[in-house]
Amino acid sequence: VLLGDLMLSWCDEMLTRAVLDSPSMVANLGNARRFLDLCKSEVVAGQFLDVVGQTRPSLSVDEAMKVVRYKSAKYTVERPLHIGAALAGAGPDLIAGLSEVALPLGEAFQLRDDVLGVFGDPSVTGKPAGDDLREGKRTVLIARTSVLTDDAGRTLLHEQLGTTDGVDAVRELIQSSGALAAVEGDIARLEDQAEAALSALGPAAREILGPLALTATRRTR
Amino acid sequence: VLLGDLMLSWCDEMLTRAVLDSPSMVANLGNARRFLDLCKSEVVAGQFLDVVGQTRPSLSVDEAMKVVRYKSAKYTVERPLHIGAALAGAGPDLIAGLSEVALPLGEAFQLRDDVLGVFGDPSVTGKPAGDDLREGKRTVLIARTSVLTDDAGRTLLHEQLGTTDGVDAVRELIQSSGALAAVEGDIARLEDQAEAALSALGPAAREILGPLALTATRRTR
Repeated sequence: VLLGDLMLSWCDEMLTRAVLDSPSMVANLGNARRFLDLCKSEVVAGQFLDVVGQTRPSLSVDEAMKVVRYKSAKYTVERPLHIGAALAGAGPDLIAGLSEVALPLGEAFQLRDDVLGVFGDPSVTGKPAGDDLREGKRTVLIARTSVLTDDAGRTLLHEQLGTTDGVDAVRELIQSSGALAAVEGDIARLEDQAEAALSALGPAAREILGPLALTATRRTR
Repeated sequence: VLLGDLMLSWCDEMLTRAVLDSPSMVANLGNARRFLDLCKSEVVAGQFLDVVGQTRPSLSVDEAMKVVRYKSAKYTVERPLHIGAALAGAGPDLIAGLSEVALPLGEAFQLRDDVLGVFGDPSVTGKPAGDDLREGKRTVLIARTSVLTDDAGRTLLHEQLGTTDGVDAVRELIQSSGALAAVEGDIARLEDQAEAALSALGPAAREILGPLALTATRRTR
C-alpha cells in the first residue's frame, strides 16, 4: 500500500516537474493535469467496479465492458493520449477525436488480454494459462459464456469457475458456447472502429498511431 | 486502499487547480508543489519506518523520534507551512526559519498525542485511553520507559505491552520509571525551541503562529 502511494505521488511529481522545466509546455500544464486527474479518478472507479463485481455471483456483458472501459481503456490508452496532446496544445476537436480512437482500441486491448489469459500460450505470454479462471474473474469472456450457454452450462460455470480442477471444463465451455468467437468478434469490431476513427484524424495520426494500435490488439502476449 | 488512492490524487488535484485558477500564485506553483511532493514522500517514509518499527522487539528513543519527525512533524506542521509560504513567494530564509519553528512544534504535538493516548481522559480525547498500549505501539514514551526502567521493568514491558490485561501495569511503569516526566520534559524543551525560533521570525509571525503553536502542544485532546 505504501509503495503504491509513493508511486502515485511520484507520477504527479514527474509530470508536473517535467512540464514546469519545459518553458514551451508550461501554459498547457493545467489542461494536461486535468486529464491526469481524470485518469487517476477513473482508474480508481474502474478498480472499485471490478472489486465489487468479483463479489457478485455474475456480471452482465455491459457491466463487464464498463469495468474494461474504466479500468483499462481510459487509463491505458485514452488519457495518456490526452495528456500528451494537451501538452502539445491540442484543442477540443483533437481531444474528442483521440477518444474515438482510444476507447475502442483500449477495450480491444483488454479483451485480447482476457482471451490470452485463458487460451494464450504460457511460454509466450509469460503467465500461466487459466489464472483468470482459477481466480474466478468475471471477465467479458465469462459474461458472454453465461449468456450464450444453456442452463447446464451456467450450472457448470457457477460450480467450476474459481476452482483449480474446473479450469479445463470452463475453458472448453467458453469455446463450445461460442463466447470465444463472440469476443473475437468484439475485438474485430472494436479494431475496425478504432481504425475508422484513426483515418478520420488524418494521415499523420494514422502513420504514428496505426502501428501502435495493431500492437495492442493483434498480439500473442 | 482505493479510497486512500483517490484522496491522495485529489489532494494534488485540489492544490494544483486552486493555484492555476489564481493568477497571482501561478508563478509560485513549482515551488509550492516541491514541498507537497516532499511531504507525500516523507509521510510514506515515516509510515514505513513506523510499520517496520512495530515488527521489532524494541525501538530506541532516536528511532522513535525519527518516526515522529517524518510521520508527524513534517507532514502535520512543517510542509503545510512551507506550501503556504511558497505560494506567497517566500524565499529560502523564511522557509528555513519556518522549519526551525515547525519541526520542534510538530514533534511536541506528536509527543503530546502519545501522552494523551496513555494518560488522557477518554471523555475529553474522544478515544479510549490505553489503545496505544493494547496495540503495543513503540512510541517515544515506551522507548524512554525501556531505557529508564530496570531489568524487571523491561521484562514487564516485553510481556505486557500489546496485551489488554497489561494496560494498567504498563501505564504504571511508564509513570514510575520516570518516562512520563522525561517526555513531558521533551515536550517543554521542544516548545521552548519552537518559541525561540518563532521570536526570531519577528512579531507578525509570532502573533499569527504563536496561538496556533500553543494549541498544538498544551491541549487535553
